[in-house]
Amino acid sequence: MKKNVTQKLIESHLVHGTLQPGEEIGLKIDQTLTQDATGTMVMLELEAMDLDRAKTEVSAQYVDHNLIQEDYRNADDHLFLRSAAQKFGIFYSRPGNGVSHPVHMQRLAVSGKTLLGSDSHTCANGSMGMLAMGAGGIDVAMAIAGEPYYIKMPQIMGVKLTGKLQDWVSAKDVILEMLRRYDVKGGVGKIIEYYGPGLKHLSAMDRHVIANMGAELGATTTVFPSDQVVKEFLKDQNREKDWVELTADRGAQYDIDVELDLSKIEPLIAKPSSPGNVVPVSEVEGEPIYQSYIGSSANPGYRDFAIAAEIVKGKRVAPGLSFDINPSSRQLLIQLSQDGHIASLLSAGGRMHQAGCNGCIGMGQAPASGRNSLRTTPRNFPGRSGTREDSVFLCSPETAAASALTGVITDPRKLEMPYPKLKESKPIIDDALLEAPLENNQDVTLEKGPNITAIPNFDPIKDNFEVPVLLKMGDNISTDEILAGGARVLPFRSNIQRISTYAFEIVDDTYYERAMKSRDKEGHAIVAGYNYGQGSSREHAALAPRYLGLKVVLVKDFARIHLQNLINFGIVPIRFLEENDYNKLEQETILVFKDLRNNLLKKEPFDIYIKSTNEPIKVVHDLTDRHLELILRGGIINWIKYRQGVNKA
Amino acid sequence: MKKNVTQKLIESHLVHGTLQPGEEIGLKIDQTLTQDATGTMVMLELEAMDLDRAKTEVSAQYVDHNLIQEDYRNADDHLFLRSAAQKFGIFYSRPGNGVSHPVHMQRLAVSGKTLLGSDSHTCANGSMGMLAMGAGGIDVAMAIAGEPYYIKMPQIMGVKLTGKLQDWVSAKDVILEMLRRYDVKGGVGKIIEYYGPGLKHLSAMDRHVIANMGAELGATTTVFPSDQVVKEFLKDQNREKDWVELTADRGAQYDIDVELDLSKIEPLIAKPSSPGNVVPVSEVEGEPIYQSYIGSSANPGYRDFAIAAEIVKGKRVAPGLSFDINPSSRQLLIQLSQDGHIASLLSAGGRMHQAGCNGCIGMGQAPASGRNSLRTTPRNFPGRSGTREDSVFLCSPETAAASALTGVITDPRKLEMPYPKLKESKPIIDDALLEAPLENNQDVTLEKGPNITAIPNFDPIKDNFEVPVLLKMGDNISTDEILAGGARVLPFRSNIQRISTYAFEIVDDTYYERAMKSRDKEGHAIVAGYNYGQGSSREHAALAPRYLGLKVVLVKDFARIHLQNLINFGIVPIRFLEENDYNKLEQETILVFKDLRNNLLKKEPFDIYIKSTNEPIKVVHDLTDRHLELILRGGIINWIKYRQGVNKA
Repeated sequence: MKKNVTQKLIESHLVHGTLQPGEEIGLKIDQTLTQDATGTMVMLELEAMDLDRAKTEVSAQYVDHNLIQEDYRNADDHLFLRSAAQKFGIFYSRPGNGVSHPVHMQRLAVSGKTLLGSDSHTCANGSMGMLAMGAGGIDVAMAIAGEPYYIKMPQIMGVKLTGKLQDWVSAKDVILEMLRRYDVKGGVGKIIEYYGPGLKHLSAMDRHVIANMGAELGATTTVFPSDQVVKEFLKDQNREKDWVELTADRGAQYDIDVELDLSKIEPLIAKPSSPGNVVPVSEVEGEPIYQSYIGSSANPGYRDFAIAAEIVKGKRVAPGLSFDINPSSRQLLIQLSQDGHIASLLSAGGRMHQAGCNGCIGMGQAPASGRNSLRTTPRNFPGRSGTREDSVFLCSPETAAASALTGVITDPRKLEMPYPKLKESKPIIDDALLEAPLENNQDVTLEKGPNITAIPNFDPIKDNFEVPVLLKMGDNISTDEILAGGARVLPFRSNIQRISTYAFEIVDDTYYERAMKSRDKEGHAIVAGYNYGQGSSREHAALAPRYLGLKVVLVKDFARIHLQNLINFGIVPIRFLEENDYNKLEQETILVFKDLRNNLLKKEPFDIYIKSTNEPIKVVHDLTDRHLELILRGGIINWIKYRQGVNKA
Repeated sequence: MKKNVTQKLIESHLVHGTLQPGEEIGLKIDQTLTQDATGTMVMLELEAMDLDRAKTEVSAQYVDHNLIQEDYRNADDHLFLRSAAQKFGIFYSRPGNGVSHPVHMQRLAVSGKTLLGSDSHTCANGSMGMLAMGAGGIDVAMAIAGEPYYIKMPQIMGVKLTGKLQDWVSAKDVILEMLRRYDVKGGVGKIIEYYGPGLKHLSAMDRHVIANMGAELGATTTVFPSDQVVKEFLKDQNREKDWVELTADRGAQYDIDVELDLSKIEPLIAKPSSPGNVVPVSEVEGEPIYQSYIGSSANPGYRDFAIAAEIVKGKRVAPGLSFDINPSSRQLLIQLSQDGHIASLLSAGGRMHQAGCNGCIGMGQAPASGRNSLRTTPRNFPGRSGTREDSVFLCSPETAAASALTGVITDPRKLEMPYPKLKESKPIIDDALLEAPLENNQDVTLEKGPNITAIPNFDPIKDNFEVPVLLKMGDNISTDEILAGGARVLPFRSNIQRISTYAFEIVDDTYYERAMKSRDKEGHAIVAGYNYGQGSSREHAALAPRYLGLKVVLVKDFARIHLQNLINFGIVPIRFLEENDYNKLEQETILVFKDLRNNLLKKEPFDIYIKSTNEPIKVVHDLTDRHLELILRGGIINWIKYRQGVNKA
């Protein structure tokens, strides 16, 4: 049989199941990636599992999300992560080394391998011919411990690229075109594989841009072949040995066929407040902006900064405009600095920030009240910028730089200048801030500062109980709304009790208080529409509500990673069989659950009841036997403890 | 009469009084400087005063302290400051343009002029042959409105510099030597003027280093002559026209004579937690460090970064060490970038931050719990780094860079390399982020975000009342301890009610609650030892306790700027006549005040009473008639309102 790249990657790592879409498959994981916002919890989980040393080929802990050391807590987290990386035989990428995704691609990615990361943009390394997936922290902890990773076998969407991008149009516009066509749910249950003659015009970092924001399509991941372009990239990184060729067989089939003519794409922009809200730039031209922001894992490459630098070179940004430059990696910062691009950006009025996620994750650079921010970042969910009522547009570096000059949203093709031709120097390779795993890790002790607390214990779910619906929400609720990132919240990432005070704050700021009251009784449920839990993979979005007494989430459907996080922490995730039943429920409706454990195990639709009317609501779930075992034990931590007990006995 | 530089500067600006040390003098102010942490309040005060346009020759509003936009508040503050600068005809230096002191020196300082700034390191521009003084925000607001600035005529300490610094010793070691000799009170009531043959070996930015940390000596200011060195500096800035020669007459006298042989100075370091705690570096050699930090207004020059870059070039900092690079201005960042120094610092493992105050003011880069931080910053008061139990050492860039390589405190003379010879390129001059005042400022409206609130009203002091002593503190309490800077606190700088919750938190975290209760009664008093209120000029350190009911501060003596701030906000500042009486008071002692207004006006020692024993405590004050008028009206805002009422009537 002719195989595509995705099939080859999955087959070579399959330890359970078959490639039938919808079936649960288990995959061997070769590499893992954790970042600081999710990583402290992963390391605490590894400690709880009494792990000797990572069983993966490569595991790397990055510090990129929270680089603002307002007090000892963040600095203590960094020391804790470093000591944990040393203890468990993991690479440690220090603050200032850059964003995990481009750094991993530059220094550690190996084509043909699997990568699991506790960051939803882990899929960015699909650019390297890897099967790279975002997951909850505990899934990554399990992978580090050598356990397979389970997913439902996705459909494979083959996107045939033809043609070549026009001047002033770049990779960001390609993924924005995909989002324009398919929106934030279009990739759910799918792996997106790009192929075709257009590929050769896209550099490895261009592919990173496209693979990165595959997350915004809701895709399981995005896959590119490992071809000569990838080989050249690795060669520049002095890592040619990490290249293997991996391309689709001639005549390989896909479950879904799509064609994209690169030459037809024009500059695009995602309007507030969804990455799927895409229109041509020309449609919003002239809209005044407060900020133009270059950087993030959605535009991390040399060319992304260099093109902006060439566009603004010798000119000056509009008066009053904040032109924020957020370098994506230290390697690129050195290279851009030596080539004079940093000086060009600064001279035009740029404000240079440290290498890292920064404003992309709401960690600084928040816009002013009621002002438009134009960003090359991947997401514009409400409040993600740090400003509650924000207005964030997503676009290419070309559009961001052109608009920085004019002070209003501007189609870069309207600039009176030729499209700059870039000449990229060779990167200077050194890993001063990427510490390799220790050979001898036996004697390392974890350094735990005073803000790092243990994970609370959770009880298994009961059979019969009544709980109120504390929130009724609409469609596309993101994990940013469930539990915000940003500078107020992230310092408490290693402290569940404290971080839970921010749960659902953006949706309803009375939730925390009402939920805390529910803990003394039977807990509570929440209700939502489609695509519940889209966005970031942060498992705190499950852990914090769980700590506050969340027992059941009842929705029209779930986003993939968050669903897994709910299962991992023993929250029952169920769907309406009849979607109209959604309309029968209100905030404070009391739901009655009867014989729940047996009902779940039957894997058939079953009834729950509205207490006031005794009316039944038919619900279903898509949980596997493995999922059910986790949920009925009260989550994966209880399950591991149980299994360790069984093994010892 | 032969005159020194200080006398010439004062005489040419004297509008009240004579040059008799101790006498109150009024000075015409030519230039002002405000920064964002103190500036929002200054602008609200100008609004309250209904000012048309700044009456000064040059006023500049800098944004350098709080550059972390965690949410809308900080961004809104920046918009407010920009609109206020436009409304009042003031320069506006935008976020990313750098720290006020070096930027002002580069772009706006004019030799022979007076400069008043709402930042205690304003004295740094004494390097330019200016009389540059730090003051409370409201003093600066008054100066912008054309009012004179009043101080007690200080003594003039003449420091004759001879010899030449040895290799590996630099300007920072000169001011550390002054602090070793005279400690943090050694400059109180004095202006320090440097002269002599050693001067010609000190560049303008070297002089900035020495003048800047004159604040740490407690000096009113530091004065350098305006000579050929200053002329060259201004020439490089394309501002030769702003130079006038201003040197001491041959044979000029000083009130106090000091001699400093530059060739005898060795590398010095201030141990935690006072800038006066100075010892030779060799005395603490080998002490392990967590962090080495280059930058701040205490080492802002090209050479300060370039020497560090040359020392670490081609090497790598110690494993696990955080090597934080904080550029001091955008101009220097561009220049250092173009000369390859930024790349050298990054390649060695440096972590590059945005241009601004950053960690120097506790705004990021806080050290981990229980770890040593080595910094080129001016201050190491407890908690100023952002970490409560911090351990901060102050040193030269040479010592910081050498120690970064070894991971332990290291005398740079021990490095096995020749002392780097630096070649400084010409700076590239452009003011993309320094907005000039609008010609036509009549139609500008202030942009006030939702976190910007009006200043509360304060009642005048009563004649007879009883108040408890809510705090009894020791010597050298800094304004950082009275009201911390840092990322938790600074966002509320335009919101007195909210910022007051942090008052004295570092000293006693029950103060806020107890003080709020005192508001419902007669208020409260506090007691302290020597040098009360040293450090930063922030007027919030008076405003916030005043809002919480602080009526009287009773100490052994006061630091100059904070004393003025207390007066400006109507708090009664008194001293023990017999310092032993300090021992008779405890926390919660009730003090009884009788006929206070008359007692103050008599300007003689008077009695207050311990309620429980009726024992009298003899107290004194050093208030002028002008001060008394302000205090008896309840502060300068009430006084201005009264005067405006009189003028209208």
